[in-house]
Order: sequence, then C-alpha cells, then structure tokens
Amino acid sequence: MVKIAIDMMGGDDAPQIVLEAVEQAVKDFEDLEIILFGDEQQNTIQHDRVDFRHCSEEITMEDEPVRAIKKKKDSSMVRMAEAVKSGEADGCVSAGNTGALMSAGLFVVGRIKGVSRPALVLTLPTISGKGFVFMDVGANAEAKPEHLLQYAQLGNIYAQKIRGIKQPSVGLLNIGTEAAKGNSLTKTTFNLMESQNEFNFSGNVEAKSLMEDAADVVVTDGYTGNMILKNLEGVAKAFGKMFKQTLLSSFKNKLAALVLRKDLTQLTQKMDYAEYGGSVLLGIDGIVVKAHGSSSAKAFYSAIKQAKIAGEQEIVKTMRETVGEA
Amino acid sequence: MVKIAIDMMGGDDAPQIVLEAVEQAVKDFEDLEIILFGDEQQNTIQHDRVDFRHCSEEITMEDEPVRAIKKKKDSSMVRMAEAVKSGEADGCVSAGNTGALMSAGLFVVGRIKGVSRPALVLTLPTISGKGFVFMDVGANAEAKPEHLLQYAQLGNIYAQKIRGIKQPSVGLLNIGTEAAKGNSLTKTTFNLMESQNEFNFSGNVEAKSLMEDAADVVVTDGYTGNMILKNLEGVAKAFGKMFKQTLLSSFKNKLAALVLRKDLTQLTQKMDYAEYGGSVLLGIDGIVVKAHGSSSAKAFYSAIKQAKIAGEQEIVKTMRETVGEA
Repeated sequence: MVKIAIDMMGGDDAPQIVLEAVEQAVKDFEDLEIILFGDEQQNTIQHDRVDFRHCSEEITMEDEPVRAIKKKKDSSMVRMAEAVKSGEADGCVSAGNTGALMSAGLFVVGRIKGVSRPALVLTLPTISGKGFVFMDVGANAEAKPEHLLQYAQLGNIYAQKIRGIKQPSVGLLNIGTEAAKGNSLTKTTFNLMESQNEFNFSGNVEAKSLMEDAADVVVTDGYTGNMILKNLEGVAKAFGKMFKQTLLSSFKNKLAALVLRKDLTQLTQKMDYAEYGGSVLLGIDGIVVKAHGSSSAKAFYSAIKQAKIAGEQEIVKTMRETVGEA
Repeated sequence: MVKIAIDMMGGDDAPQIVLEAVEQAVKDFEDLEIILFGDEQQNTIQHDRVDFRHCSEEITMEDEPVRAIKKKKDSSMVRMAEAVKSGEADGCVSAGNTGALMSAGLFVVGRIKGVSRPALVLTLPTISGKGFVFMDVGANAEAKPEHLLQYAQLGNIYAQKIRGIKQPSVGLLNIGTEAAKGNSLTKTTFNLMESQNEFNFSGNVEAKSLMEDAADVVVTDGYTGNMILKNLEGVAKAFGKMFKQTLLSSFKNKLAALVLRKDLTQLTQKMDYAEYGGSVLLGIDGIVVKAHGSSSAKAFYSAIKQAKIAGEQEIVKTMRETVGEA
C-alpha cells in the first residue's frame, strides 16, 4: 500500500480536475491510499481509501512563496507537505504555486542530508516517443559544478527507478559537443563528470539534439533549464498557431485539415509533456510532485501515478543511501 | 557606391552559391562594388564591378579558429578581413568557419575602441513576420552585466539603422518578467538597464514570448543565446520531421499534403531565419557578416544586401561615436 497526500486546492482548474483524477486513481490502483487536503465544502469524494482533511487556508498563484509557506499554516499545501514530513504519507502532489511548493519541499519536508540543493526534474518528449529526464528546470537559478554533479546523480536514480532504464546515459547540456566548449560552469562540470564512475556520462549534449534521444538524462543549471523549457513551450505554441492559421486560411485547406485532424491531434499529444507526469523536486527527503498549473484531470492523474511509483520504488531511500550522507 | 569584400571559399556549398549570389547582387544594385577573394581556378565571374583577388589558401570548418587566422595569411577569409581593416572595403561577408571569422574580426579588423567585447547578432523570425534582433548568439560564452549593457547599446543602433525601427524596444532575456527574477547576471543587468536613458528598455523577456514580438531587440549572454538558437533549430527540425511523418503515413494524408503543400512551404520560409540575412559581429571596427554555413545562394545574397545596407548607413561610425570612445 502506498499513501499519497494531495493538495485539492492548487491549479488553474482545481478542485475539479484534482477530484476527477483522485477518483480515477483510487479506482485503478487498489493499493493506493489518498489523504486529500482542501476545503470540505468543495469536496465531492467519499471513498474508503480517501482520507479527507479540511484546511481553512489556500495558497494562491499570487502568494509570495516563502512567506505563504511560513504564514499559511493551515493551507492545503503546507498540511500536505507536513503529512510527508511526519511519514504519514509516502509522497505528495500539488498543481499549485510552483515556488510555494518548492519552499514547502525545502522548509517543511526538508532536504536529504548531504544533498546541497534540490533540483526540479521533468520528463520531456522526444521524436521517438521515448522522452528524456531533464533537470534542473528552475529550482535554483544559480549552480556550481558540484551541484550539477549531484543533479546528475539524482537524475540517474530517477531514470532508473521511475523510467525503468537500467543504465541511463547522462549528458551535460552545452553549446557544443567538445569538452572545451561552453562557459566556466560547463567546462568544469564536464571534467567532474568525466572523472567519476557512479553514472554513465555520455558527454555534452547540444540543445538542438534534445528531441532526438541524445541522452536519457540531461543536466543543466536551473536558469538554462527553465529557459529551454519555456522556449520549447513558446515555439510549440507559435508553431501550432501559425499552422492553425494556415489550415483555416482557405476552403481547400479546411478540407485537408479535416482529413488530418485525428493524426495531428495524436502528434500534439505526443509532444505534450503533461502526459509524462509532473515535475519532481529531487533531493528532498520525501516525494514532492508538481503537476503543471494548467493540468487536466488526465495530467494530474499521471502525476499521482508518478508519485505512487516513486513511493513503491523507494526512490528517496536510494537517494539518501547513494547521494546523501546516510 | 558601397564596396563589399567577399570570401568565395567559405560555406558548405561554396564557391557555387557565393558566385550565384554575387552575380545577382551586382545585377540588382548598381551602386555595389565587390572584391572577391578566392581560388581563380574556380571563379566564373567577370564583371566591371567585381574585382577578383586570387588567394592560395582556404580556411576549412575543421581549422582551429585563432591558429588558422594567424597562420593562413593568404586565405580568402584573412585577406577579405584585411580589405576591411585597410579601409579598401566597407564590409565583408563569409559563410565559412564561424570561430575563424570571429577571430578575423577581432584580430584582423579589430574592436571599436571603448567596446569591451563584440557580440554576434541575428534577426530571428516572429509569428507576425516582423522578427527581432537577438544577441549575443555565441561570440562570448561568458558575460558581465556591463557587457550586456553594451550589447544592448549596439543592438539598439543595429535595429535603428539596419531594420529601420526608430525607437526600438530593448528587452533582457530572463526566466521571469519581474525585476527580481533570474540569476545574478540578469538581476544586476536589469538594474543597469533600468537606470540609463540611451535606449528604450522594456524589461525582462521570457523565452516563451520570443516569437510573439516581445521586444525589437533581445539581449542575453552568448551561452544562453547560442543555447536558445540551437534549441529553436532543433525544435523546428523535430516538428518538421514528425509532421512530415504524419503527412506521409497514409494515402489520404498524402492527398491532404498535396493540397497544403504551397502554403506549408510559405510557412517554412517565414520561419527560416536565413531569409533575414546573416549574423553580424557588432563592436568590430568594420562590418563583418557571417552567412549561415549551409547558406543557399538566396541566403548569401541576403547577407550581401545586409552588409551593403550597414555600409550605407555607416553603422560602424555611429557605434564608434555612441558606444565607443570616439
């Protein structure tokens, strides 16, 4: 049995999408227990494996992250994190304020002893459909070489345990493939990664090869990672927009669009990284999953499933023993 | 009359595409003179406004940039740069080794006195078709706030003179729009840019808004800029590939593709940044234009036209007087 704490109030379409996702998850997984935190007035679920806890507060997208976590003690997000801290829950999931959830991870759940900085990890799509683990997508805007090395160790475990890849290849995001390329951060990190044997370092990865299965895990600092993530989002949106304009620009194009519709929808889904689950704050002494703010019920369901697998695989225990000081 | 020095030997499809482009350019512009540097055995142009100069050497893509510039004194690239240095030519264009061309700019032509570091600038497409000036796309992997400030000053002049925008909005690429977002580089740069009156600073620009006319000029360090550029290339390629697979996956899709073909080709062209010309090394005491390595004759022609406009507009003189110490 795995027990996951869930923030019912976070996300653009909460609590509806959260309630739908939870209902589906407890139906599909008989070994799953949920503790649901939120406003009892809005709760519609009654299930013997869903334990509801009323919270009088809620953290909004406008809240300043650190202050919100410190002040709103009875918010669904803080209480969810406390359930992980106390060991009552194996992990937690929220689609709320990203910064607040990271603060809840850091200040309520706490870091694994020996991990300098947690990193936010996400699985991104590739053309083949395989996808790759990308980190840090924004937990820390600044990073030193030793932080990137630790990210790689955490990402390596994540790819093994959650994505089931036995010996993941781990690449370093850089502006060239040669060892001497990049800025002082990537140059030093390259050397650090080359001289270790804990994971299978496959060298530098260029941003243009990311979608072509360049590596199973790609590591970068949170500034660059967030930049790439937002660029991917922006380009996908822009291409979609321009393509739609083309398809609607004439009667004959509209007919062609009708023919292609089903296949194009499939293509769009393949590129939608919400299908791969949420992002995970690695290095925290518990499982903290961030579902996308605009998550659908399906995407939130994927995030719950991801937290469940992480719990079953005891990913935090492995990180404590391998990367931490335990 | 504007005189442009051209490297006949650089680029994947040189000298053919260079010769075609030069032929078209001298035909279209009666006030254009060309000095063409290359192997006389391969030259096919005879024209009263094309002055051919034979060179016994050639810099290849495999050459180590700085060494090549220092050793291969009789290469078409070095001699082209010397023509700019001596004042014989107003500017130069090459589709050859990017690193070598940057070294030729730095060590042969030289920096504008008072400019700390040159930056590589490129016009990228936006959905509206307007495009924006993006820099540094890779001249310096590392930058300090005062360098980014100078990039902005140079980019501002470039947008005014080459793109004809009277009061360009200048944005700082960052991972959030708020002033406090980003890493130490962007935070300090934000404050520097806010406290000056030389250009119209429009604040932080996120990577997801780049294609939506977020600003006329977007400034970042060469590591991030190169990363974004390669990511754009990679995503465009990946989307194109997946889309092509979809269009060829069934008979009915192939029929729909036939209907859409012309409009889709137009869409692809709109997104092809080679149409906007080459990249320009700003801060150099002369006009140095880098055409894409895989330039077509049409793209190389655009790069010649760009160098011609830069010459007519006396862009270097303005930079010397405004940004430099002159």
